[in-house]
Amino acid sequence: MDFQNSFPVWNRLNKDQQERILQSLISKSVKKGSVLHDGSGCTGLMLVETGQLRAYILSDEGREVTLYRLFDMDMCLFSASCILRSIQFTITIEAEKDTRLWIIPSDTYKSLMQESAPLANYTNELMASRFSEVMWLIEQVMWKSLDKRLAEFLLSEASIEGSSELRITHEAIANHLGSHREVITRMLKYFQNESMVRLQRGRIELLDEDRLLKLCDG
Amino acid sequence: MDFQNSFPVWNRLNKDQQERILQSLISKSVKKGSVLHDGSGCTGLMLVETGQLRAYILSDEGREVTLYRLFDMDMCLFSASCILRSIQFTITIEAEKDTRLWIIPSDTYKSLMQESAPLANYTNELMASRFSEVMWLIEQVMWKSLDKRLAEFLLSEASIEGSSELRITHEAIANHLGSHREVITRMLKYFQNESMVRLQRGRIELLDEDRLLKLCDG
Repeated sequence: MDFQNSFPVWNRLNKDQQERILQSLISKSVKKGSVLHDGSGCTGLMLVETGQLRAYILSDEGREVTLYRLFDMDMCLFSASCILRSIQFTITIEAEKDTRLWIIPSDTYKSLMQESAPLANYTNELMASRFSEVMWLIEQVMWKSLDKRLAEFLLSEASIEGSSELRITHEAIANHLGSHREVITRMLKYFQNESMVRLQRGRIELLDEDRLLKLCDG
Repeated sequence: MDFQNSFPVWNRLNKDQQERILQSLISKSVKKGSVLHDGSGCTGLMLVETGQLRAYILSDEGREVTLYRLFDMDMCLFSASCILRSIQFTITIEAEKDTRLWIIPSDTYKSLMQESAPLANYTNELMASRFSEVMWLIEQVMWKSLDKRLAEFLLSEASIEGSSELRITHEAIANHLGSHREVITRMLKYFQNESMVRLQRGRIELLDEDRLLKLCDG
């Protein structure tokens, strides 16, 4: 895919606007584990060509919570938080897989958004969809117990990876869910006692997805 | 104040666009306690002339968490959630004080936003500022213990009301913080034992704001 076919409102921009994007566009490949944005700068809007990014927040003590993931053709707005002065929070973006992406520099995007109603409305939809993911997270955290959140996380990982055997550490799960490693380990052992999962070093095999699903919905 | 002077991007709309807003604009007065929006419809954008609104989410079991408050001249976007198809969550809006407000019907706003870059960008800033409030809430819930959140809530209420004597029930505080009445009562009694507050029927007097502040920051 080329950028023109991947950027949703491309055809609603005029020739001059398209030209300004192409002239400033950056193409980049990053390795799994790279931190692409840590809130100290205003990197620009990232469009994922192929790969997987994770957006998370970090506490003063270094605890993490995953806010959402970005997959092929997803656009990351908050790596360009300076384009909107009302964004008063910091998100870290890291590559969860080797990733190829395009970056539209913040200055270019901001000046185009000021003049183009289609681009501004696209940005609105983008923010609304991230907002919806964060609201989902709030509801999870406020109303759902950790066993349900953990079951939901395992099922979602299995679906993303297309495999019922997950290569992930308890520490990494704790970072996704904003919990502690010890708490996750205890809960996973409970799941294992109940024959829902099998634990091995650095791996978790889902044995009974139906029961995990029932646990989420229950 | 009239609407024209209260609506931030009024002067960046053309005559025709201004006319369309004025022709569909609704002016409304509501009593304290009224629910203005409950997610079942798409009421429109509300601009508070005077008064106070509260935006909150509601669990299936009827538990509440306050997301943010709206004061004089604040605009409520999520009472018009249908204008953005990516908004996949439901917020309830209620009047916390007798309130006068204007409502721009969703249809009118949506059609203007499609054609006007200034209005679409204003909407972006509006959403970004609510997003920032919700991110603040997530950080509170994830990283802060309830005693800190309660101290912060009491200080914020005192500041909103301009008084160190708050007329509020423990139940209402639980609803703001997404907690249970019994838990709030226990914590308030601990605050009272520590001489930070004095509890009376339906009232809480803040005795030591400095210590409450230290508790928040600690």
